[in-house]
Amino acid sequence: MKNIPRKIYLQENEIPKVWYNIVPDMPEKQAPFIHPGKLKPVELEDLLPVFCEELAKQELDETTRYFEIPEEVREYYKTFRPSPLVRAYNLEKELKTPAKIYYKFEGNNTSGSHKLNSAAAQVYYCKKQGLTKLTTETGAGQWGTALAMACAYFEMDLTVYMVKVSFEQKPFRKAVIQTYGANVIASPSDTTDIGKKILAQNPGTGGSLGCAISEAIEAAVKTDNCRYVLGSVLNHVLLHQSVIGLETKAAFEKIDEYPDIIIGCTGGGSNSGGLMTPFIKDKLDKKQSPYFILAEPVSCPSFTRGKFTYDFCDTGNITPLAKMYTVGNGYIPSANHAGGLRFHGMSPIMSKLYHDKIIDEARAEEQTSVFEAATLFAKCETILPAPESSHAIRVAIDEALKCRETGEAKTILFGLSGTGYFDMNAYEQFMDKTMTDHIPTDEELEAGFASIPKFPGIE
Amino acid sequence: MKNIPRKIYLQENEIPKVWYNIVPDMPEKQAPFIHPGKLKPVELEDLLPVFCEELAKQELDETTRYFEIPEEVREYYKTFRPSPLVRAYNLEKELKTPAKIYYKFEGNNTSGSHKLNSAAAQVYYCKKQGLTKLTTETGAGQWGTALAMACAYFEMDLTVYMVKVSFEQKPFRKAVIQTYGANVIASPSDTTDIGKKILAQNPGTGGSLGCAISEAIEAAVKTDNCRYVLGSVLNHVLLHQSVIGLETKAAFEKIDEYPDIIIGCTGGGSNSGGLMTPFIKDKLDKKQSPYFILAEPVSCPSFTRGKFTYDFCDTGNITPLAKMYTVGNGYIPSANHAGGLRFHGMSPIMSKLYHDKIIDEARAEEQTSVFEAATLFAKCETILPAPESSHAIRVAIDEALKCRETGEAKTILFGLSGTGYFDMNAYEQFMDKTMTDHIPTDEELEAGFASIPKFPGIE
Repeated sequence: MKNIPRKIYLQENEIPKVWYNIVPDMPEKQAPFIHPGKLKPVELEDLLPVFCEELAKQELDETTRYFEIPEEVREYYKTFRPSPLVRAYNLEKELKTPAKIYYKFEGNNTSGSHKLNSAAAQVYYCKKQGLTKLTTETGAGQWGTALAMACAYFEMDLTVYMVKVSFEQKPFRKAVIQTYGANVIASPSDTTDIGKKILAQNPGTGGSLGCAISEAIEAAVKTDNCRYVLGSVLNHVLLHQSVIGLETKAAFEKIDEYPDIIIGCTGGGSNSGGLMTPFIKDKLDKKQSPYFILAEPVSCPSFTRGKFTYDFCDTGNITPLAKMYTVGNGYIPSANHAGGLRFHGMSPIMSKLYHDKIIDEARAEEQTSVFEAATLFAKCETILPAPESSHAIRVAIDEALKCRETGEAKTILFGLSGTGYFDMNAYEQFMDKTMTDHIPTDEELEAGFASIPKFPGIE
Repeated sequence: MKNIPRKIYLQENEIPKVWYNIVPDMPEKQAPFIHPGKLKPVELEDLLPVFCEELAKQELDETTRYFEIPEEVREYYKTFRPSPLVRAYNLEKELKTPAKIYYKFEGNNTSGSHKLNSAAAQVYYCKKQGLTKLTTETGAGQWGTALAMACAYFEMDLTVYMVKVSFEQKPFRKAVIQTYGANVIASPSDTTDIGKKILAQNPGTGGSLGCAISEAIEAAVKTDNCRYVLGSVLNHVLLHQSVIGLETKAAFEKIDEYPDIIIGCTGGGSNSGGLMTPFIKDKLDKKQSPYFILAEPVSCPSFTRGKFTYDFCDTGNITPLAKMYTVGNGYIPSANHAGGLRFHGMSPIMSKLYHDKIIDEARAEEQTSVFEAATLFAKCETILPAPESSHAIRVAIDEALKCRETGEAKTILFGLSGTGYFDMNAYEQFMDKTMTDHIPTDEELEAGFASIPKFPGIE
């Protein structure tokens, strides 16, 4: 009999009582957001028209290491947390590897992803401030679903700008969001000035996350008692997502284990940041030195081929400038790209940690190889993984296979951020071999880079 | 603070080590299956061409109260069990009821349902016997998915006859089944004699579960080293599903609770039987007396409007005759019926328990009312429920509302057998108010009853 159970669950009263903010512990802080008009670091009052106050404060906080999780948010967390840390015994056996593979599974809720962790917190603070309406964008749909769920629970109105190509390809995602009571609009739309402008320039566009962000912000600013909320990239989102890594650490402590390698898929950084930052603290404190690997798609290679520079977070160029790894706010992944992880930029915190080599490596994966890993994982471990999460599975399998070569029994942890129930189109393409890979040409990347703004003294 | 956590999880080593067979404890046994050729009770050798031997033995066993769960099956169970018993605090609050509502949630696996409990067991025994191929049918798709998952794990070939209307309306369900490596055929098909005959009679038919069963059995019998497996109705399926009720009892013991009312949705009886039989034992042992309610759709009202008589389990009339509540093997629910629970018959064990008033009540629900309950539940409890399970939610809500009237703080348990991620068409119909109800007319029921065979001396 095995000593370590397959699933290590914490008790409900062991759900973390605080979130961890890595900024105070960073040897060098991430560069500040820059106000594109003033060309100066963003201050609290710059953010308040767009964000609720508590979230804006969290966004700018560089000194508070731990934020208490409000009791109401913890109560809501109990509907889907603690999430299990799972030992992938079946996958290990299939790979004939001496490695021990663990995954933190965040997909056991209707959003099918980790996104609900931050959605719950953001909606709670907005409600507490007396706001009644929220806007947001969604790409693959997990964030929109998560936010709709939290809005249903805390009783807030929600409008979701859904990237048009997803709106059309994923009608069932849209239906789930609507079931929880939210209003869903295909972006670009004629409900905003920016949407109209983009539609006029490019009537046939399938939209992009950057464009949907522009529309959601415009709608929030123009609506009474309304604010905008964002599901990734920002510092306060990483803060809320730290519940993933904190729970993972607590679960490892229960079985007296610690990972040698930590792998997270990364689009805007909320999943990888949430999983990794509590472990990065151990590295910064010189207590442990796990090896950190970020997994991204070759078709949107922010870390592996992007520039580390200031860029807008949206296509309409109305957000603050963020210093981050970016392929340019005008970059759109090639049409064959399935699944999410299609944001042009990256969390400034994760960007800085990678730039400073505190995060060790970023790896870009081709999607056919990712779906091959996903299918193997599904057969062994029963869970049908999200395409996004499967980037991390691909890397975990590759690392486990290396261990088979070297004979090392490394402990590998990866974040299984979600499930793929709404991605069956992509699985079908993989099965019938119509799925293709596309490595962006240098010219395609240069076209993206050309959209990065140049402001004097800002880089 | 609340004393009882929202989710009561057992430890992995608390997964039951045995399944419970209620037959030895029944005051009167269910009537035996009858061989339609011999017009005598089915014997082991009659079953062996169709079923694997161990399952056939379990099917006929009337004396063994507990069957040990094989270690290999328990290991597989650990990929998705124990499942949580959840206290529906949010729903209680929404309903302003003094009742305590609990649900046993079986949907946290990729099949999205409880079906994997029996799939794992059945595939294991078939593999152990040296079989290499299996056939089955699937309607809404949960059973087909579950069986494909178990076949991927235990490495068995699988062909799934999927009711044509589901095949067409649920392409993503089909894709999930295929992802796990199974072959999916729309039924009726031209791959079997029975399929060809039905197609010739009714070329435009959308198929039925009864028809798909006929095809799967024919294919199994005609293929070397192949057997047929079934996801509901049969005694050995109820046996395997007893893991639901056994776990539920163990979880209740941990919090020193016991349900006053137990509600299960019922199509063929695997879910309701699995949840209820361990509690029915308490009633038969005169230890406890919970009130049992079966929830079924008005559009397929086997318990509430069916006959308790011998009928075929399939449309092609090649199965044994089962004495059960049935609306007739030729009955097809009206086209507007969404979701599963569309089998014409019912588990003979559950039928007998209901007939003998050991199960107290059966209630038929209209689907708009069911989806109203589903949507409320989703908003409160975050989980998007399956249409099938939502019949039980409907009854649980109604019982909780009665408690609000009477002031009674009853403890209500229902089985949340699965999730509705692949049923968004139906949710969309509910939202845009194109969903309709249809109570079968007496004439429609009579047409179904007309398909019930009449054999001398068999009723």
